[in-house]
Amino acid sequence: MRKKLVVCAVILSVAGSVVAADRPVAPNGIALYPDYLSWKVVAPSYREDKGQIRVITGNEIAVAALKAGTKPLPDGSVLAKVAWKAEKHPNFPVASEPGAFVQVEFMVKAARKYKETGGWGFARFVGNTLQPYGKDKSFVVECFGCHTPVAGNDYLFTKMVKSP
Amino acid sequence: MRKKLVVCAVILSVAGSVVAADRPVAPNGIALYPDYLSWKVVAPSYREDKGQIRVITGNEIAVAALKAGTKPLPDGSVLAKVAWKAEKHPNFPVASEPGAFVQVEFMVKAARKYKETGGWGFARFVGNTLQPYGKDKSFVVECFGCHTPVAGNDYLFTKMVKSP
Ligand code: HEC
Ligand code: HEC
Repeated sequence: MRKKLVVCAVILSVAGSVVAADRPVAPNGIALYPDYLSWKVVAPSYREDKGQIRVITGNEIAVAALKAGTKPLPDGSVLAKVAWKAEKHPNFPVASEPGAFVQVEFMVKAARKYKETGGWGFARFVGNTLQPYGKDKSFVVECFGCHTPVAGNDYLFTKMVKSP
Repeated sequence: MRKKLVVCAVILSVAGSVVAADRPVAPNGIALYPDYLSWKVVAPSYREDKGQIRVITGNEIAVAALKAGTKPLPDGSVLAKVAWKAEKHPNFPVASEPGAFVQVEFMVKAARKYKETGGWGFARFVGNTLQPYGKDKSFVVECFGCHTPVAGNDYLFTKMVKSP
């Protein structure tokens, strides 16, 4: 029993630690994908109630599937949503541009592994320290709850932008 | 003289034509860069007076210079600004997402060639037909005029987003 507790403590401290191999790790074990701003644009978005401006990007697998209209997205797809405080441009106040970094969130597709949350693993990293969000892995209940109304779109709110 | 006129007519018809090598061409000769949505994100932006949501992307040369803080940007830098009509998300109306495509604009750095407009060549392609904007090449007066207040930032409004 004591052995089990020790093992648990070690697992918890690893899962909850801010850095693993130099990358922050969410309480459910998902590590930050550091290259999320090198991925292709899925869409910009603006959240007026929170005063945030965002961009949603996707890795190659996700973007290829979104372009082809493949639903559900295949395993290996990862989407990132990056949020900044929206600030009025000093030279052009009717335009809002990104100010301070707020957070980055990920949805990682692994249909079997995350079958209880629609096949998606969720993770959020907050502020300039990229602090993993959530005390334990039950934080995903909040994410999944809010994404459930869009179950018909594979739990995704965002569609690939249209361009001619 | 007749020869000169014929040459002029040919040049004009080429410059003003909607398609050259399958790409629309602006009246100043700048052809659409078809891969602008594969470029890296510089920043999202939101224009409340026009109800538009945008994303600014840059080619490799531009993004490398912006990251390094190199000003003015080197020749070969190209920035794109893509605009969509902002629409409230049907499942989440406080979030605005891209609807219909409005236009794509480019700024192309060639310090010598475009020295009268801060070293930047401007081009805009409107709507799903990507109609080149401007009756003749004097259309750039409008672009340059509006970008002149940000001459101190190499005529760019947008800064590279910050992320940790
Ligand atoms: C209160 C509702 C709500 C909650 C809670 C929520 N989301 Fe979202 N999420 C949204 C909406 C709405 C969008 C669409 C884009 C936007 O609003 O900027 C979105 C978009 C996303 C995207 C981009 C893909 C898509 O579906 O459009 C990711 C990734 C994401 N959320 C991750 C998370 C994670 C991780 C959590 C929990 C830690 C979370 N979300 C919790 C409402 C929510
Ligand atoms: C009425 C003012 C105005 C005019 C006219 C204007 N722009 Fe801009 N432009 C802006 C502002 C403000 C931004 C910052 C981003 C935003 O508002 O979405 C911008 C951004 C851009 C960008 C992205 C790089 C940057 O500077 O941020 C490009 C490319 C661009 N404009 C091209 C053009 C072209 C091409 C034309 C003319 C055909 C033009 N602009 C005319 C105001 C203007």
